[in-house]
Amino acid sequence: MRSAGLRAPSPRVRSQSTVDVRPVVFVIGVMLTILAATMAIPAMADIIVGNPDWRIFIAAASVTAFVGIALTLAARTEIASFSLRQAFLLTSLSWVVVAAFGALPFAFSRLNLSYADAYFETMSGLTTTGSTVIVGLDKAPAGVLLWRGLLSLIGGVGIIALAIAVLPLLRVGGMQLFRLESSDKSEKVLPRAGQIVIGIGTAYLLLNFACALSYWIAGMDGFDAVNHAMSTIATGGFTTSDSSFGKYDSPLLDGLATVFMLMGGMTFTLFLRMYQGEHLALWRDKQTHAYLGTFAAFAAAIATWLVLAEGKEIGFAVRHAAFTVSSVITTTGFASTDWGVWGPFPLVLIFMLTFVGGCSGSTSGGIKIFRFQVLFQIGRTQIRQALQPSGVFISKYDRKPISDAVAQSVLAFVTLYVFTWAMASAALGLCGLDLITALTGAATALGNVGPGLGEIIGPAGTFAPLPTSAKWILSFAMLLGRLELITVFVLLSRRFWRS
Amino acid sequence: MRSAGLRAPSPRVRSQSTVDVRPVVFVIGVMLTILAATMAIPAMADIIVGNPDWRIFIAAASVTAFVGIALTLAARTEIASFSLRQAFLLTSLSWVVVAAFGALPFAFSRLNLSYADAYFETMSGLTTTGSTVIVGLDKAPAGVLLWRGLLSLIGGVGIIALAIAVLPLLRVGGMQLFRLESSDKSEKVLPRAGQIVIGIGTAYLLLNFACALSYWIAGMDGFDAVNHAMSTIATGGFTTSDSSFGKYDSPLLDGLATVFMLMGGMTFTLFLRMYQGEHLALWRDKQTHAYLGTFAAFAAAIATWLVLAEGKEIGFAVRHAAFTVSSVITTTGFASTDWGVWGPFPLVLIFMLTFVGGCSGSTSGGIKIFRFQVLFQIGRTQIRQALQPSGVFISKYDRKPISDAVAQSVLAFVTLYVFTWAMASAALGLCGLDLITALTGAATALGNVGPGLGEIIGPAGTFAPLPTSAKWILSFAMLLGRLELITVFVLLSRRFWRS
Repeated sequence: MRSAGLRAPSPRVRSQSTVDVRPVVFVIGVMLTILAATMAIPAMADIIVGNPDWRIFIAAASVTAFVGIALTLAARTEIASFSLRQAFLLTSLSWVVVAAFGALPFAFSRLNLSYADAYFETMSGLTTTGSTVIVGLDKAPAGVLLWRGLLSLIGGVGIIALAIAVLPLLRVGGMQLFRLESSDKSEKVLPRAGQIVIGIGTAYLLLNFACALSYWIAGMDGFDAVNHAMSTIATGGFTTSDSSFGKYDSPLLDGLATVFMLMGGMTFTLFLRMYQGEHLALWRDKQTHAYLGTFAAFAAAIATWLVLAEGKEIGFAVRHAAFTVSSVITTTGFASTDWGVWGPFPLVLIFMLTFVGGCSGSTSGGIKIFRFQVLFQIGRTQIRQALQPSGVFISKYDRKPISDAVAQSVLAFVTLYVFTWAMASAALGLCGLDLITALTGAATALGNVGPGLGEIIGPAGTFAPLPTSAKWILSFAMLLGRLELITVFVLLSRRFWRS
Repeated sequence: MRSAGLRAPSPRVRSQSTVDVRPVVFVIGVMLTILAATMAIPAMADIIVGNPDWRIFIAAASVTAFVGIALTLAARTEIASFSLRQAFLLTSLSWVVVAAFGALPFAFSRLNLSYADAYFETMSGLTTTGSTVIVGLDKAPAGVLLWRGLLSLIGGVGIIALAIAVLPLLRVGGMQLFRLESSDKSEKVLPRAGQIVIGIGTAYLLLNFACALSYWIAGMDGFDAVNHAMSTIATGGFTTSDSSFGKYDSPLLDGLATVFMLMGGMTFTLFLRMYQGEHLALWRDKQTHAYLGTFAAFAAAIATWLVLAEGKEIGFAVRHAAFTVSSVITTTGFASTDWGVWGPFPLVLIFMLTFVGGCSGSTSGGIKIFRFQVLFQIGRTQIRQALQPSGVFISKYDRKPISDAVAQSVLAFVTLYVFTWAMASAALGLCGLDLITALTGAATALGNVGPGLGEIIGPAGTFAPLPTSAKWILSFAMLLGRLELITVFVLLSRRFWRS
């Protein structure tokens, strides 16, 4: 990963004995204030289309702004640097609190959602999962639909910033691979923090713009185009129709979405480096190769099955297999057709893909491609070692040796991921969900994908019928997956809170 | 694990450039000759009950003995030592070839089994899995039933010998933990290879005898008692009735089976050390604590669910929950009742347990308790490290530091286990199995458990209806799981066969 050469905009990290929450509260106050301002956008949309719903956004914005400003003032402090514990706390807490206030418009709306529903929907947007509890999207108010898109937009750029700037410093799940000190001069393309943030933000917005424009030209109306673009590049998966992309039944739109979803799953710093003149950055990146290779392999396997076993036409098979595989591997979760009825082999493959995810530093969730590459290298080394116990073998990633610390981080992450999935499934079983809904619901939430399998939460269903307890568990699972597990689990350890 | 102090009966391991298969073929020839002799036992049983089926065992024994003796003579050689590659090859090949000939009585019998069916049944017995393709067990010939039990008996002692003597030398999945050189004099309880083998074999046979006697006293007829004992201590799971232990519907028998299954899942060297005078060996062993703790926790959770959610009586709940959890955690696979109808929460827990397994050096399969203990320690260290990046933290297992090599072996094993499960599920999906059957079939085969979930292969069903291709895949998955994956995967690497 050459992108690793980019200097992370490092808040100076100090070790300290107790956790001073003031700076954390201050930053969250600022975030809430910004969130309140953002609520003006759907309010305006509602006013433009003459929808009385604009009042709910103003009400929600007022509450949010009041709390945000109050926190900011109360905890005002000189932030010179963040301690490691503060960084962990801020990362988890900001997502939880922003979701709590971002849920207000849904809770106030006339969609008749409980607060648990509203929180689920908001967490689903912010974590760019795309699972929904809203039935009747086609008739939902414009403001609410726009708010769902905006939550995805915010969440998507938030996670990229986190993956580039914070997670490598926290050494979460092998992310320290992307934190190599830049000794190679040519890689110092963007030495300063501000420039990276502006660069990535610009790339992100340009991609959103290009996607919306393409959708619009290909036949969506302007509102749908903007909304879908926001959940495509964020690999979110919210749509404006209960039938998702199936509403349009357009090969052109499906093709465009496939391409833009795949772009959302790529490492965003690579786009930046291409813009900076290194035109081949993307094509030379090993993670991108493996990512596109995996996409192609799964799409080919499913398309072949659709032709040979299900008797579909080749055009149909290729179009929907490519769309579905890109939708699941990038953890977007759009559906161009109900793949729940494609028979056993595609279902098993799609279920496996739920765990895969896209590239590091993208908007996608899941385990992510680079970890599989590291695992593969470790596996090769293990087999060599088994055959020659006295030999010294070193696993490499992108021509650099994988340290024991990174190897263990990655392996522990994958193991923890599987454990968390098992625990979440058991918890969902306890809520009364059937086996398939429990297993795939936990997997889709943890991977930030969107739909699960089975009658209830499959691509043709919604999460609305689930019990409230299951919705809270799934909301937490989305958060865990989005923040790469360890970030959250650290907070749950006693050690974190001891001085 | 203090059992690690026992010296493994080490065949001197040399490194050499090519694989000389003569010693491997020789040993396999000897094994086949012994297998042929074993076939005399069911032949005699058939003769005693006046069943003409004894002829099929004589026929099978003739073929097996002929090939066995021919191989022995053809490859006769001075075996001074085994190279590492020869040890790998012998381990995998012996299981495959013994199953190929052990299948002959089933193939020749009047049960109308294809060779794929017969091979599946034999591999299921030898790997102590206990999945069956035979419908109508209650009316099956005595010889065939006894042959199934004997296969479990052989497989059970085979895997213990392998786990104690061979796998630690091959450094498979962290098994090198149990290969510490004995510097502590008090641990040299059984210094010589022959004594260990005799000791373990005696303990194994005594347990089988005690189990059979208990079953008989508790009400089984003699034949059933012997047959069930052989598949209890081997944690196999073959029974003589389509309704498994449900046939007897006896709380006493269920309780006895629970205890003996749990003993089958314990480290056998501990029994030996208790006999040698170290009476508290078992009670001091950390792996045994975690094993029994896991058993108790899952049984309590399921029993509570059965009482509160399903309205069962407490007696029923405790009895069947304890039986079922011990059956699945020890990878036996007996069923005292159809737990397929217990509702979602128990099903998710049972599915999770399919992956767990018992203690190292037992007859049980799965990932095994010590690996979870190592994982837990690594996880704790990772969280400490995340909070104090500059600190030096060392994971320990039973008060001894876990080396990076062991940590990576264990982590890689668990990851590989999950991958293999995913691949096997996809392959089963390709054979047309539905999602639940594919996912749980692959898991139950890999973990050597026995039954899966769902209508077809659940505790009330059999593997008979599956397509032939699925049976071969499952047979291979059983072998993979039994030999701890890497032993087999090493053979599939190009590197193995290169000089």
